[in-house]
Amino acid sequence: MKADEATGRGLDTEGGRTADMIGRPAQSLAELADIEAIKQLKHAYFRLLDSKQFDELGLLLCVDATTSYESGKYAHHGRAEVVSFLSDSLGNRAIVHEHLGHHPEIVLTSATTAVGNWYLHDRVIVAGVDFELGGTAVYRDEYEKVDGAWRIRHTGYERVYEEQRKLSTGELTAFRDRFNPEAKIPG
Amino acid sequence: MKADEATGRGLDTEGGRTADMIGRPAQSLAELADIEAIKQLKHAYFRLLDSKQFDELGLLLCVDATTSYESGKYAHHGRAEVVSFLSDSLGNRAIVHEHLGHHPEIVLTSATTAVGNWYLHDRVIVAGVDFELGGTAVYRDEYEKVDGAWRIRHTGYERVYEEQRKLSTGELTAFRDRFNPEAKIPG
Amino acid sequence: MKADEATGRGLDTEGGRTADMIGRPAQSLAELADIEAIKQLKHAYFRLLDSKQFDELGLLLCVDATTSYESGKYAHHGRAEVVSFLSDSLGNRAIVHEHLGHHPEIVLTSATTAVGNWYLHDRVIVAGVDFELGGTAVYRDEYEKVDGAWRIRHTGYERVYEEQRKLSTGELTAFRDRFNPEAKIPG
Repeated sequence: MKADEATGRGLDTEGGRTADMIGRPAQSLAELADIEAIKQLKHAYFRLLDSKQFDELGLLLCVDATTSYESGKYAHHGRAEVVSFLSDSLGNRAIVHEHLGHHPEIVLTSATTAVGNWYLHDRVIVAGVDFELGGTAVYRDEYEKVDGAWRIRHTGYERVYEEQRKLSTGELTAFRDRFNPEAKIPG
Repeated sequence: MKADEATGRGLDTEGGRTADMIGRPAQSLAELADIEAIKQLKHAYFRLLDSKQFDELGLLLCVDATTSYESGKYAHHGRAEVVSFLSDSLGNRAIVHEHLGHHPEIVLTSATTAVGNWYLHDRVIVAGVDFELGGTAVYRDEYEKVDGAWRIRHTGYERVYEEQRKLSTGELTAFRDRFNPEAKIPG
Repeated sequence: MKADEATGRGLDTEGGRTADMIGRPAQSLAELADIEAIKQLKHAYFRLLDSKQFDELGLLLCVDATTSYESGKYAHHGRAEVVSFLSDSLGNRAIVHEHLGHHPEIVLTSATTAVGNWYLHDRVIVAGVDFELGGTAVYRDEYEKVDGAWRIRHTGYERVYEEQRKLSTGELTAFRDRFNPEAKIPG
């Protein structure tokens, strides 16, 4: 069953499916095949990101793709701008990173458009400055089928929590949390 | 190929598929669509759990759903009891939590019933008391199709390992492990 | 759309799909059902691995299966050799381990053969000697359909990063990283 993009019926205010839509099986082979293709698209995005193949990653985005990373703190317009940002941020080989996308909830909104939620668990390590960052976030993506292949039209996420530590000792150096913005580093 | 719920044929003693059943492709669109719908159901369950939307989570359970969390240490009967337990345990906004479900093995047992295994990796952080808990567990779920939508009829898990640490320093304060119940905190 | 195993068209040099192949929906029920069956196969492999059911795990491999763990440092020929290696390495109940496979990209190369990429996140804990190891790697597998059920013909991975720590304190004791082989333990 497809969500109605125009009215938002079937999608809650956070972009997830409403409960009455969740758990309803797809009715056609095309719908199932589209969902699997979008999962593979996002899996390839993460593989190319963490292997620092930014130009190849760019080919998985619509030419006019937009982003809203970190609740819009980092926002971009167009494939070239996204690729530049990722390359500038993570291109340095002194940085090793892990971006894991879990729990895909892909909802087709037409024959050529879809939205999707993912649960991000990420970790970024910079051994040279004794630093690591980790945490979780919720992705809300939009996809478009272009010339028969699904591409990312928009991607963005909001943090759930983030911690920073010294890599060598595990000592916590920063912590923030969506549910409790007043949280302080204990100890 | 469907497992035979009555005889248990095709399911091993731990609730997983026996080897002769594993790797056999589904024969119908309906079966594949049901499997995907059940995955999205569980993904939504985790999304609503970690965003503390417990009432919405309740709608994904059968009205008479049962649980057996932590090998039955926490067991509940009925949606209302489950929602109360989760809300009481995790409703406090001073707690941030991460429940990741991996490796779904969904097996249809009839047109309206299914069982599923998942591999849980969880983490619970309470910054205010300098506490974190993490570990893994194996979920064994039962699902039922109600009015055309899959719902959780039973969910429960058994721990593989669990550790507790001080959030600020990473110091281990407790450890337990299914394979080695005698394990002590080293150091 | 199937990759051409003979020419390598559609597969890049790292074994992933080239961008023009990514995001294209499957055209048949059989293809989708095979992809799901292969995912369940690999999920069962990880379940049986981490529950130390090595003989059962062996049944998921082709009789003449090969491995190339840790970039070929550990390579095996035949199911019996693989099962012996895993049992020797991880059979000790003083060891608890977690092998999580993410981001499957399964590509059928014929009606009875397929290749697949997975993103491994693993952790091995030996409390008795105050040791833990963790990290990520990229799996490149080959699968074969034998008597109607998919089996693993080859499995192997290359590390992205690996760290070793004292379990009790979190202190880093070793670190290596594919992008920066000169990285030293900080501090």
